Amino acid sequence: MNKVNNNENRAILPEPTIRRLPWYLSYVRMLDNMGVEYVSSTQISNELNVQSSQIAKDLSYLNIRGKTRIGYSVHRLLMELEDFLGFNEQHDAVVIGTGSLGAALMQDHGLEHYGLNIVAGFDVRGEVIGQSVDGVPVYDISDLPSWQREHGVSIAILTVPVERAQEAADQAIASGMTALWNFTPYRIKAPEEVVIANTSIYAHLAIIYNRMHNTIIDTKQQ
Amino acid sequence: MNKVNNNENRAILPEPTIRRLPWYLSYVRMLDNMGVEYVSSTQISNELNVQSSQIAKDLSYLNIRGKTRIGYSVHRLLMELEDFLGFNEQHDAVVIGTGSLGAALMQDHGLEHYGLNIVAGFDVRGEVIGQSVDGVPVYDISDLPSWQREHGVSIAILTVPVERAQEAADQAIASGMTALWNFTPYRIKAPEEVVIANTSIYAHLAIIYNRMHNTIIDTKQQ
Repeated sequence: MNKVNNNENRAILPEPTIRRLPWYLSYVRMLDNMGVEYVSSTQISNELNVQSSQIAKDLSYLNIRGKTRIGYSVHRLLMELEDFLGFNEQHDAVVIGTGSLGAALMQDHGLEHYGLNIVAGFDVRGEVIGQSVDGVPVYDISDLPSWQREHGVSIAILTVPVERAQEAADQAIASGMTALWNFTPYRIKAPEEVVIANTSIYAHLAIIYNRMHNTIIDTKQQ
Repeated sequence: MNKVNNNENRAILPEPTIRRLPWYLSYVRMLDNMGVEYVSSTQISNELNVQSSQIAKDLSYLNIRGKTRIGYSVHRLLMELEDFLGFNEQHDAVVIGTGSLGAALMQDHGLEHYGLNIVAGFDVRGEVIGQSVDGVPVYDISDLPSWQREHGVSIAILTVPVERAQEAADQAIASGMTALWNFTPYRIKAPEEVVIANTSIYAHLAIIYNRMHNTIIDTKQQ
């Protein structure tokens, strides 16, 4: 059996910090657009409701220091955050499974602003193979190994039906891809060196439903 | 200032449990399709690499008990999980911001299998208002209050540009919506009784980039 790797135990940068950095980025980008020059961790704290000591700690990973009584240069902080998060670099990726969600991501130009460049789609369905989605070509999944030898892409986005999730992951890894962005609710097994990020949109729906129902119960109990 | 509510502190059902339940569901659905009748927590544990004591604890929230030496009825477990997660009920929702990601979700029929029914889109852009996306009508955001008085939908999906995130959330809440599914990287402020689920797809990208770069560094260091 392969080792399961969900990246939760890797040291590197704490995941909660990586999750908060995009909040700071979007706030700082807004300030930059407004022409604001400096921002303090107290201001960021008030706006985002994160403790200012936590903000200072998170930002200490970056190559930037705030000035006493003035704070951080907004523009410099914006640049450092974008660089640090990898949003300024171009990362090529393929979509495996070009159904509704996969095709949607291929059309989402918002991802380009975050450094993701989808260059190809792969599928098993004869009716979509040879077609393209928003200019991005769709190939037969059996062509992935040879395509990959030529293009050397690292990131595979998995948007296949859940019952094909492991198979698609295995194909991506066998072709030499090193990072899987898994949109299926299946828990992918992969060698430890493969990076896996799970975007569990269905789990988020379950959380919404659960919280909504409980809110209703809470109200009745009052 | 409004109170920030990110739902992380609500007791109800532990969020890690809610996140694991869809893994069990997808595995159990696969077994059911294969005609398997019983499954033990040890089997689920081996397949998903979750400790079997944890699985037993997670499943103890459901209205089902496993039989000694036989385990759980696969079909019964499937039904209970779907019911418990709310995927068998229909939950109406609107999309605010029908750009690339919003329109993509409006076309993603996969969401229907998880109980989500997108009934309308709202936007500020004149060129899309009055149009429809895959049969779902797109209205002017200024019509949201009157539309909502007639339809009484609870869930708003926020797929607006980040700088409009708080404004869109405020409009949804003012119209009486009680759950926000936030796809923007902005940290929404909302009254405590409003349910917020953040799907931070850009944070997940940052995690992939960070882990990939560090994997490369690790390799070099060996």
